[in-house]
Amino acid sequence: MKFILDAFGGDNCPNAIIDGVVLAQKEYPDIEFIITGNKQIINDYINEKKYKINNLQVVDAPEIITCNDVPTVAIKTMKNSSLVVALDMLKKDDSIDALISTGSTGAILAGGFLKIGRIKGVSRPALCPALPTKTGGNVLLIDCGANADCKPINLCHFAMMGSIYYKELFGKENPRVALVCNGTEDSKGNELVKSTFPLMKKLPINFVGNMEARDALSGEYDVLVCDGFTGNVFLKATEGAVGLVMSELKKSIKSSLLSKIGAVLSFKAFKKVKKRLDYNKYGGSPFIGCSKTIIKSHGSSNSETIYASIVQAYKYQSASINEKIAEQIVNLPNLEDLEND
Amino acid sequence: MKFILDAFGGDNCPNAIIDGVVLAQKEYPDIEFIITGNKQIINDYINEKKYKINNLQVVDAPEIITCNDVPTVAIKTMKNSSLVVALDMLKKDDSIDALISTGSTGAILAGGFLKIGRIKGVSRPALCPALPTKTGGNVLLIDCGANADCKPINLCHFAMMGSIYYKELFGKENPRVALVCNGTEDSKGNELVKSTFPLMKKLPINFVGNMEARDALSGEYDVLVCDGFTGNVFLKATEGAVGLVMSELKKSIKSSLLSKIGAVLSFKAFKKVKKRLDYNKYGGSPFIGCSKTIIKSHGSSNSETIYASIVQAYKYQSASINEKIAEQIVNLPNLEDLEND
Repeated sequence: MKFILDAFGGDNCPNAIIDGVVLAQKEYPDIEFIITGNKQIINDYINEKKYKINNLQVVDAPEIITCNDVPTVAIKTMKNSSLVVALDMLKKDDSIDALISTGSTGAILAGGFLKIGRIKGVSRPALCPALPTKTGGNVLLIDCGANADCKPINLCHFAMMGSIYYKELFGKENPRVALVCNGTEDSKGNELVKSTFPLMKKLPINFVGNMEARDALSGEYDVLVCDGFTGNVFLKATEGAVGLVMSELKKSIKSSLLSKIGAVLSFKAFKKVKKRLDYNKYGGSPFIGCSKTIIKSHGSSNSETIYASIVQAYKYQSASINEKIAEQIVNLPNLEDLEND
Repeated sequence: MKFILDAFGGDNCPNAIIDGVVLAQKEYPDIEFIITGNKQIINDYINEKKYKINNLQVVDAPEIITCNDVPTVAIKTMKNSSLVVALDMLKKDDSIDALISTGSTGAILAGGFLKIGRIKGVSRPALCPALPTKTGGNVLLIDCGANADCKPINLCHFAMMGSIYYKELFGKENPRVALVCNGTEDSKGNELVKSTFPLMKKLPINFVGNMEARDALSGEYDVLVCDGFTGNVFLKATEGAVGLVMSELKKSIKSSLLSKIGAVLSFKAFKKVKKRLDYNKYGGSPFIGCSKTIIKSHGSSNSETIYASIVQAYKYQSASINEKIAEQIVNLPNLEDLEND
């Protein structure tokens, strides 16, 4: 397998990318890597660390797209940026299997959409991170931010893609797919959810109905489907709430000597929880539905996150997710026919 | 002041309602109360507890609307239910200032809308709970579930009502109002947010722009505006995440003796956090924009929650929130004119 990594755009670039590649090569010596970015800086870091990386090609691409650049404009005009060079190589070179980037989400989505394109039959690619559940497992959230406005057909495709992805990555037959909703009753939802519900029942997936956001991480669901606006609000509300509890606990614990001692003793437990809830270790969000594999890794990714994203891309490729999506989406009955059934 | 309380429909009914009234009468002896519900059960409990409640009238209304009843149907047909009797009295009797209920949210919203009606000029009433922030304050979320689908004018009215409510209840001039969004940039959002953004800038409020759900509880905002579907997902995602962290901490702490000892020592701190994040103590959500004050208290309300809801209704009335909304909504420039500016 051959992966291309955009070495710039994230907070810890390019060091985290290079360190992540070194970690990955120990476990997966057969993967070839290409890194795009300022060649001088990349090589200086490799030399400084005295890394000997086999199967590594560094491609000079000195421009950096930031979150302040307008995504579609940046993709069209910043041709020497680490992201655009990586996208162009991914597109042209059939031997490259996947792209990993920690850069601007908007630019990655725009680039994926404009340069790489969709799997035939997929109406919209979507971001699909894995979140931890109460029961120790994972749940996929699709779409978590690529498509702010969606139609029922988009949500149906998200459900299909999420179901295939979950089955292959977590090895579970008939993953339980639910619609994110403001109640569990069949009649609940906004217009989008209400129109999608009857269509979901006709898809070849294990659709278990509407789900309240309160139960999203309960372990009762495997794939949560929603428009990208709702998914983004859900994900960030979860992040914010976790941060609030942690900071409140810290404040409370500092307020008395006894509880300070207690905190020291339960420190390991705290750390464990923090780690478990830290989605960095799960790698990134695949931009699922693109015709080639693209993984958006968190902007604050460290070397472990990059390593996890590489493993994720490896599993994604090994399981032929894209091929399976292509096959099953094409075989899907026409959704407009379903609607008129 | 005179308040009417629906004594049935919640988890701890009617005991929590009656206990809450007793608590409130100690602090606010001038409030008169009416309680609706099964008179026998209510009176039995009062006698059992040997309560002497001044200014209390019990009105027999033996039917109970549950979450399994279709709200609009229940409001129209269950005329002897504790909620419908309370709504009818609130509507007909000008001396009754506010209604508090722990019953089915859907039924309260349907009843408020159908029987009590809106303040003139308000396009849609909305649920507006107060949430705790990192900095020790509160932030209002409007709408958190009354209107699954909204138009820009609805969001503008929510912003106006939330701003007035915040100013009066928390005594802060120019509360900072933000749109819940999938990014902070002006150009972000789904179609609804994008269409609402320019209108919000023209309202007589302190509109500070788009906000990411991650920062909702940061203390940087006072009023968060969104459609009821998004608000519901946000609120429940927050609840779910807080629950997840707490349960993970418990599990982790139980896993070793040292951390168990630690947990005992920091127990007080934990309890404090739990209390601070427990929205029960903030009372309920006003169904703001109705022509009379309606407070939806949590289904699992205990006597303290009911007490808090009564205090909330008292402050709401004392501050003449409804009158101020009526005045300012009527004086609002025509939003369609704003759109064409």
